[in-house]
Amino acid sequence: MKTTSLFGPGLMVLLLYACAPTSPDEPTESTAEENTLQAIFPRGQKGSEDLFKGNAYHHGLIAPDSIFTTLAGNVYFEPGARSNWHCHPAGQILIITDGIGYHQIEGQDIEIIRKGDVVTCPPGVKHWHGASPDVGLQQLYVIPNTEKGIVNWQEAVTEDQYSID
Amino acid sequence: MKTTSLFGPGLMVLLLYACAPTSPDEPTESTAEENTLQAIFPRGQKGSEDLFKGNAYHHGLIAPDSIFTTLAGNVYFEPGARSNWHCHPAGQILIITDGIGYHQIEGQDIEIIRKGDVVTCPPGVKHWHGASPDVGLQQLYVIPNTEKGIVNWQEAVTEDQYSID
Repeated sequence: MKTTSLFGPGLMVLLLYACAPTSPDEPTESTAEENTLQAIFPRGQKGSEDLFKGNAYHHGLIAPDSIFTTLAGNVYFEPGARSNWHCHPAGQILIITDGIGYHQIEGQDIEIIRKGDVVTCPPGVKHWHGASPDVGLQQLYVIPNTEKGIVNWQEAVTEDQYSID
Repeated sequence: MKTTSLFGPGLMVLLLYACAPTSPDEPTESTAEENTLQAIFPRGQKGSEDLFKGNAYHHGLIAPDSIFTTLAGNVYFEPGARSNWHCHPAGQILIITDGIGYHQIEGQDIEIIRKGDVVTCPPGVKHWHGASPDVGLQQLYVIPNTEKGIVNWQEAVTEDQYSID
């Protein structure tokens, strides 16, 4: 039961992998640890450059149907990767399973999201999400009530918008 | 945003813990590895003995409301723990994030469920789920369309029903 609605079919399994290996001449233990994320699902298919900045990978879990009217999947964002701005006609639930990332609802500050966090975006509200600059993000998403629609994609997130410094 | 609908409020964080420590006089590497599961969420509150056999713990993630009409949470089943038979008026999606467990829809064989698996139970269909006898289970659940109802609890799963030998 997989969906191709956002990215396409899944590909290969990576149970544990380095998201951004440290430079051999500048080793730091904390950075090496932060960049090794737990992957529960196959990494999946790379997202389109038209919709994502950097490398984001999608693995579908539940395809929308008339019984559950729910779409679910996993997205792995490499460090620095993020979605374009977009909205979901019925809203979206994000469940963070590892790493550190950003979520921003239009008009609000960026929220830092980490393993174990759950954030929501209301129906029809513009938002974007992705990894932090230095640590990747593993996130499950759930889109309910798919009879209302799935996603409406919009413009890219600028470097200024992505910066929280 | 937490729900108390199934078990009650969550409690404390266990990022990594042994589900069933091996006996010190019978150490086996494989068993020790299998029984150390990754926990993404706080362990949460122990399920009622009236509804669960053994130790099952619930941590709520999304409470049902009129916007998302979705209930989501995490259940950690210790080895041997399982739910009673029950059904969901709008069905249920289970996403396995670690461990090994069982899922059975009435009239069908037990399915063995493992990290990365996704299984569904249709609306109004009787089922139960839980850990395998020797390895625990970390599972997310999603109940869509909560305006139709959440869960109707039924009788316990017998030892005969739990056995797949």
